[in-house]
Amino acid sequence: MPRFIKKSLKKAGSAPGTLVHVGDKRSDAVAISVMDYDTDFLRERKIDAIAEVFPLRDSPTTTWIDISGIHNLDLIEKTGAHFGIHPLTLEDVVNTGHRPKIEAFDNYLFIVLKMLQYDPDREQITSEQISLLLGPHWLISFQEVSGDIFDPVRERIRKGRLRIRNTGCDYLAYALIDAIVDHYFHILEKIGNHIELVEEAVTENPEVDILQTIHSLKSEVIYLRKQVWPLREIVNHMSKEDSDLIKESTHLFLGDVYDHVVQVIDTIESYRDLLGGMLDLYLSMQSNRMNEVMKVLTIIATIFIPITFVAGIYGMNFKNMPELEWGWGYGMAWLIMVVGAVCMLVFFRKKKWL
Amino acid sequence: MPRFIKKSLKKAGSAPGTLVHVGDKRSDAVAISVMDYDTDFLRERKIDAIAEVFPLRDSPTTTWIDISGIHNLDLIEKTGAHFGIHPLTLEDVVNTGHRPKIEAFDNYLFIVLKMLQYDPDREQITSEQISLLLGPHWLISFQEVSGDIFDPVRERIRKGRLRIRNTGCDYLAYALIDAIVDHYFHILEKIGNHIELVEEAVTENPEVDILQTIHSLKSEVIYLRKQVWPLREIVNHMSKEDSDLIKESTHLFLGDVYDHVVQVIDTIESYRDLLGGMLDLYLSMQSNRMNEVMKVLTIIATIFIPITFVAGIYGMNFKNMPELEWGWGYGMAWLIMVVGAVCMLVFFRKKKWL
Amino acid sequence: MPRFIKKSLKKAGSAPGTLVHVGDKRSDAVAISVMDYDTDFLRERKIDAIAEVFPLRDSPTTTWIDISGIHNLDLIEKTGAHFGIHPLTLEDVVNTGHRPKIEAFDNYLFIVLKMLQYDPDREQITSEQISLLLGPHWLISFQEVSGDIFDPVRERIRKGRLRIRNTGCDYLAYALIDAIVDHYFHILEKIGNHIELVEEAVTENPEVDILQTIHSLKSEVIYLRKQVWPLREIVNHMSKEDSDLIKESTHLFLGDVYDHVVQVIDTIESYRDLLGGMLDLYLSMQSNRMNEVMKVLTIIATIFIPITFVAGIYGMNFKNMPELEWGWGYGMAWLIMVVGAVCMLVFFRKKKWL
Amino acid sequence: MPRFIKKSLKKAGSAPGTLVHVGDKRSDAVAISVMDYDTDFLRERKIDAIAEVFPLRDSPTTTWIDISGIHNLDLIEKTGAHFGIHPLTLEDVVNTGHRPKIEAFDNYLFIVLKMLQYDPDREQITSEQISLLLGPHWLISFQEVSGDIFDPVRERIRKGRLRIRNTGCDYLAYALIDAIVDHYFHILEKIGNHIELVEEAVTENPEVDILQTIHSLKSEVIYLRKQVWPLREIVNHMSKEDSDLIKESTHLFLGDVYDHVVQVIDTIESYRDLLGGMLDLYLSMQSNRMNEVMKVLTIIATIFIPITFVAGIYGMNFKNMPELEWGWGYGMAWLIMVVGAVCMLVFFRKKKWL
Amino acid sequence: MPRFIKKSLKKAGSAPGTLVHVGDKRSDAVAISVMDYDTDFLRERKIDAIAEVFPLRDSPTTTWIDISGIHNLDLIEKTGAHFGIHPLTLEDVVNTGHRPKIEAFDNYLFIVLKMLQYDPDREQITSEQISLLLGPHWLISFQEVSGDIFDPVRERIRKGRLRIRNTGCDYLAYALIDAIVDHYFHILEKIGNHIELVEEAVTENPEVDILQTIHSLKSEVIYLRKQVWPLREIVNHMSKEDSDLIKESTHLFLGDVYDHVVQVIDTIESYRDLLGGMLDLYLSMQSNRMNEVMKVLTIIATIFIPITFVAGIYGMNFKNMPELEWGWGYGMAWLIMVVGAVCMLVFFRKKKWL
Repeated sequence: MPRFIKKSLKKAGSAPGTLVHVGDKRSDAVAISVMDYDTDFLRERKIDAIAEVFPLRDSPTTTWIDISGIHNLDLIEKTGAHFGIHPLTLEDVVNTGHRPKIEAFDNYLFIVLKMLQYDPDREQITSEQISLLLGPHWLISFQEVSGDIFDPVRERIRKGRLRIRNTGCDYLAYALIDAIVDHYFHILEKIGNHIELVEEAVTENPEVDILQTIHSLKSEVIYLRKQVWPLREIVNHMSKEDSDLIKESTHLFLGDVYDHVVQVIDTIESYRDLLGGMLDLYLSMQSNRMNEVMKVLTIIATIFIPITFVAGIYGMNFKNMPELEWGWGYGMAWLIMVVGAVCMLVFFRKKKWL
Repeated sequence: MPRFIKKSLKKAGSAPGTLVHVGDKRSDAVAISVMDYDTDFLRERKIDAIAEVFPLRDSPTTTWIDISGIHNLDLIEKTGAHFGIHPLTLEDVVNTGHRPKIEAFDNYLFIVLKMLQYDPDREQITSEQISLLLGPHWLISFQEVSGDIFDPVRERIRKGRLRIRNTGCDYLAYALIDAIVDHYFHILEKIGNHIELVEEAVTENPEVDILQTIHSLKSEVIYLRKQVWPLREIVNHMSKEDSDLIKESTHLFLGDVYDHVVQVIDTIESYRDLLGGMLDLYLSMQSNRMNEVMKVLTIIATIFIPITFVAGIYGMNFKNMPELEWGWGYGMAWLIMVVGAVCMLVFFRKKKWL
Repeated sequence: MPRFIKKSLKKAGSAPGTLVHVGDKRSDAVAISVMDYDTDFLRERKIDAIAEVFPLRDSPTTTWIDISGIHNLDLIEKTGAHFGIHPLTLEDVVNTGHRPKIEAFDNYLFIVLKMLQYDPDREQITSEQISLLLGPHWLISFQEVSGDIFDPVRERIRKGRLRIRNTGCDYLAYALIDAIVDHYFHILEKIGNHIELVEEAVTENPEVDILQTIHSLKSEVIYLRKQVWPLREIVNHMSKEDSDLIKESTHLFLGDVYDHVVQVIDTIESYRDLLGGMLDLYLSMQSNRMNEVMKVLTIIATIFIPITFVAGIYGMNFKNMPELEWGWGYGMAWLIMVVGAVCMLVFFRKKKWL
Repeated sequence: MPRFIKKSLKKAGSAPGTLVHVGDKRSDAVAISVMDYDTDFLRERKIDAIAEVFPLRDSPTTTWIDISGIHNLDLIEKTGAHFGIHPLTLEDVVNTGHRPKIEAFDNYLFIVLKMLQYDPDREQITSEQISLLLGPHWLISFQEVSGDIFDPVRERIRKGRLRIRNTGCDYLAYALIDAIVDHYFHILEKIGNHIELVEEAVTENPEVDILQTIHSLKSEVIYLRKQVWPLREIVNHMSKEDSDLIKESTHLFLGDVYDHVVQVIDTIESYRDLLGGMLDLYLSMQSNRMNEVMKVLTIIATIFIPITFVAGIYGMNFKNMPELEWGWGYGMAWLIMVVGAVCMLVFFRKKKWL
Repeated sequence: MPRFIKKSLKKAGSAPGTLVHVGDKRSDAVAISVMDYDTDFLRERKIDAIAEVFPLRDSPTTTWIDISGIHNLDLIEKTGAHFGIHPLTLEDVVNTGHRPKIEAFDNYLFIVLKMLQYDPDREQITSEQISLLLGPHWLISFQEVSGDIFDPVRERIRKGRLRIRNTGCDYLAYALIDAIVDHYFHILEKIGNHIELVEEAVTENPEVDILQTIHSLKSEVIYLRKQVWPLREIVNHMSKEDSDLIKESTHLFLGDVYDHVVQVIDTIESYRDLLGGMLDLYLSMQSNRMNEVMKVLTIIATIFIPITFVAGIYGMNFKNMPELEWGWGYGMAWLIMVVGAVCMLVFFRKKKWL
């Protein structure tokens, strides 16, 4: 279950705050993109050295530093030192096995989220950790790999939409979280479609490997639930936070995200119930079908066994078998057999087995 | 599972407050009906342009604007602008995938409810979102399609029933919610009758497709539960709200609705338990019946197999089979077979398999 | 499931406080019995017109008005008007589908309880709603049908037992609730005895219809649970109520009732567990027994099938079958068959199938 | 289920505080043993008349009155009157069907506990109610039958162990509760050993009556749980009680008992899980074993049925059957049969059924 | 279930604080290792007599006394006396059956933890109790057997890592707890790998003993859960403790451990779900496979039984069987048999049983 336990397996007992990258070793450069803006002003660039953005820490404009790739520990340590990030936070940024959480520090909020993707080939959900550091005038986001999930937010900033340009870092953080949660709905939709297909298949044309499909859908839903569940408390906490870092006006928007998260969790729970019910239905129908087969087959066998016995009797070679000599012996044997079969059928019919 | 996830699948990350209509594209006009009344006075009309009612916003009379159809985004935006509705609220009004919720804003309460209908043809519950905006002297209700659910309330207003004419918008909101919750009981009754029929069928005349009926009833109950559960908290919240928008005198009536909601939820839970029990009972009875069939049939087969073997023995054509020559050989063969069969029967009877 | 949903199916949306009698239309007169007493004084009578007791409302003596029958809406409305009862309360009194609840009003407490009876013929629990209105010096109890459940309380009042004569309406309410809860134990005892009989039957002499008995016992326990569960909170609430209507000294007695209610609920939960376990046990034992039957029967068949084949071989009529000519051919055939059967038996024995 | 509901079935509605002994009528005398001690002083005696100890009520020494037998209602009423015990408490003392509970009165604490015994013959847990009345300088314990459970505590008092002689009634109450809880571990150990034996039997040598053993172990665990669960809250309540009756210094010891109770409950829950898992395992293994049997047997039958058919063909007596005349006809028949059987075996092997 | 209940089975009712060693009698010496350090200074040694460290109690340096082995009761009593440890604490130190817990005393915190090991041979988790006594300047740790779990912490102290040398006893306690919790992840990883292997086996190559493997994995997960669950509350309690013994600065680190514990518990719950699902999947697949076998086999049998009957008919020896004389009689018999078999096959095919 590597998916279920991804915590860094560093030597137990090592000091906290030790940065150890977890995951595949990667050598590609880390992509750093910076957006610095206020209502009237926007400067967007991609930089190579993190030190270029250090001066922006104290500028009153909103600065969003998006770091894609967490395998460059040196860069992360430097950033941490400059922005006054606690070593434990940095450890959590690079250790991607954490469950979603929020932690308040004196000068920043630390939020761990999970970006989920549905891999259509393996029919599996993959999870990527996204860490947000929300300071007074800056927001640093760390992604494991660079993706396009935040592009719509960038687009809104570029377009100069009033609210996002006016409202500062906390609203930006909200926009990013909202983008992530919105993406969950796409995954739910894909899984929901899959469940619908499977449900039709169960009632109409069940095949044997449907069992494994139901099982793996259940595993995905369990996995999804584990990733999303803690988010509820996080967003609730943020939307009620009395911190200086989150302005009153943003609470309303966070409340909206909270509703979405609750809706996601509700839907996950409904999926669990539906999948459980489908498994029961599949098994019950299989068993019913099987029983029907067995019943008819056994009845056929049972009718022929006694009359075959009669045939066997008169196949015996005893010298002295008077019936064999009778002219109407053969007819009588047929009569016995037909009457026996009919009696059996009537008995079965009366017992309602037919 | 389109029913379980109806959230607008707008591009993840787009700005909040963007109005996007979810559902089938519709071109028919939106029906707007307005009732403006106080104790002595009532004016009821159907209007075409929403602007006609704007002056009523500040009049001290109670104004109920009922808008059937949410596909005219322009109308909704205009209404929102005039009545000071937050963009997030408007987004939620048109986005019909929300779970029931209540949100307090400075100048109004926003309540999302689900109007449920039991579609007798498809044996499925359909859900329609109803949004209420409760202001100081006005109440705006949005329905997805125009229905007759609020007609009894209109009738009460027309008849000049004292309480509803005297008590203002909050009581009107209560009356609408009460009408919706009362309708849930009709659905529960229909489902309950269906369950009762199925239960009888299970114990008396089970057929194979009863399994699917039980399964689909369970799905409906899960769906119903998802729609009704959040209502409990909403009504509880309203009945304890210390807002200016809900008067003390209305709390008692909301408490009454709360009791009804709890009763609905209780009944849903009982239905779940009953359906679970019925499935178990059906499967157990099927299995019992099957076992009985198999037992009798197998016993018949088992009795005849050994005696058929005896017949087979004396059907052999060996030259030298002394028994065949004996005059009483045939009788002896019969004796062996009858004794064998009787022994078998006695053995089965002793083992209580018969 | 009429038992599970008995709410009045009045037209959804009708005004609250509308009195609509639910249940069979009845034309028999409503029985009103009045007990008016204090420490030294007791006056008991049966009256026809409710107006006769109106003067007692303000007398300092304790007045208990017991109204058996709630189909006379006029009487109930008059009573409500005189004693200052809220219309919603009156609606709840006649609408017998409510779950147990308690509601505090300015001048009285409204308590809804369920009187349960175990109908031995239908093996079903029937429920009757009992409403108590507890005022400062009066207590009005409404029963659906007149029963003997309150007779012991009446007897205690008549006998002049000190506590009940001294302590006023709240203690009287306690005594009535206690009588109802005590009756639950009788029902539990009856169900418990039934469960015990069924458990014996399961392990000793299971018959097919035991399944339906277990199922219907489970339904009864679910029903019982739904009726009793809310009582816990009601009595707890009363025993901690800081109202003027319930004196400090009565709290202790209510605490005692609370213990009994918890005990009832505990027992119900244990019954659920036991019935669930019994169903599992029955099914497992059935399946075990079935398996045993099938195994022995199949083994018999399997031993005879190969040796019957041998007999079949030598029953063939080929001209050229050397074995048939051999003098010891017949003996050899027997040998083959016996050795085959013995091998099979040894094999089965070794596999531990015998 | 007499074990699950032992409440006195006195006439419902009778007055509270009525003493009615529940259980077998007994005529043997009630044993009263008294220990009166402080640090330096100990007087122990068995008395016949309860009045002998009445003077000790007000003495500053610690007085422990242990009354074994609760069928002498007169004695209990006298004791109650002298020590100022509430009638409801006395009712609870003699009514042994109560669940464990604690109640604080002005001048004493009333604690109801369950002494459990594992009856090795009937493999059943029996329960005996123990009531403790903890006053300022006296502690009265009521047992249903006299047992040796408190002997170690008596021994400690006799030996003059410092803590128990110094610390007064509350510590004595703790010591008694601790003795009772410690005894639970013995029962858990016995049940645990039984479970271990059964688990071995399930995987190694399952017999049919193991089902009933698992079922009855489950019933015992349900029963145990019902008896022990309320104790958690009781001890927790005592260890946090701010009453004069329980000294600060005793809280720590009660906390220790609380840990033990939680451990008992934990173990009970684990037993439930284990027994549930064992039942599943047993049934699955039975079903697997059965399937294996059926498969092999059916395969044998299936191989022989077609070839027996071939033998049957050439056992027919048609005049005109050319094969019968052929010299190599018999060999050919054998060939067909052997090839058929081998094909069948290969097919089964390919399908992995063998 | 010795693993589930390890409480000392001392005579019930014996005095609290009695030290009784639980477990195998051991005669080897107890290993005592002492580290005494502050920022600049470190003295590490192994000692034989506990009295050697007594002077360090009052020194301002951080003193860590690690005692491996709890069978030397004399040593533990001496230590307790010198450091002012409550007798109940000492009892809990030697009684290794306790569940994890934390207790605050005036001068120290007492923490009971479980060190878990996965025994690869027996595929079983073994548990060892670790007790921490956290005083103002000293920390005493008791282990049942000496292990290497704390070595990394020792290493960090030796290396003079700043934080651990600067921050005192509470941080040391955190480091030890963190080391223990980190070790849990190793166990989870091992179990997770095992589960993954079993899951593959279930879907690809299920064997009969996989059932027992799943069962024993479930038992291990239940055991693990019982050991880890209480830790959540303990660490939460510590991280919010307002005691002098735990400094503000350490709270953050304890919060980090808390996250890890929650992650462990989450993973355990997911494992439970997965194992439950796997068992269902295995059983369903077994049953499916079995059904497939049975169906094909029964069909073969059913086709041959009627046609064997035909062969039996014409094997009868009646004198007067006209068909036997016909020239084309044999061909006709074959025709009947082939047509019969084909009809049967068509019927089965139409019924979709083939």
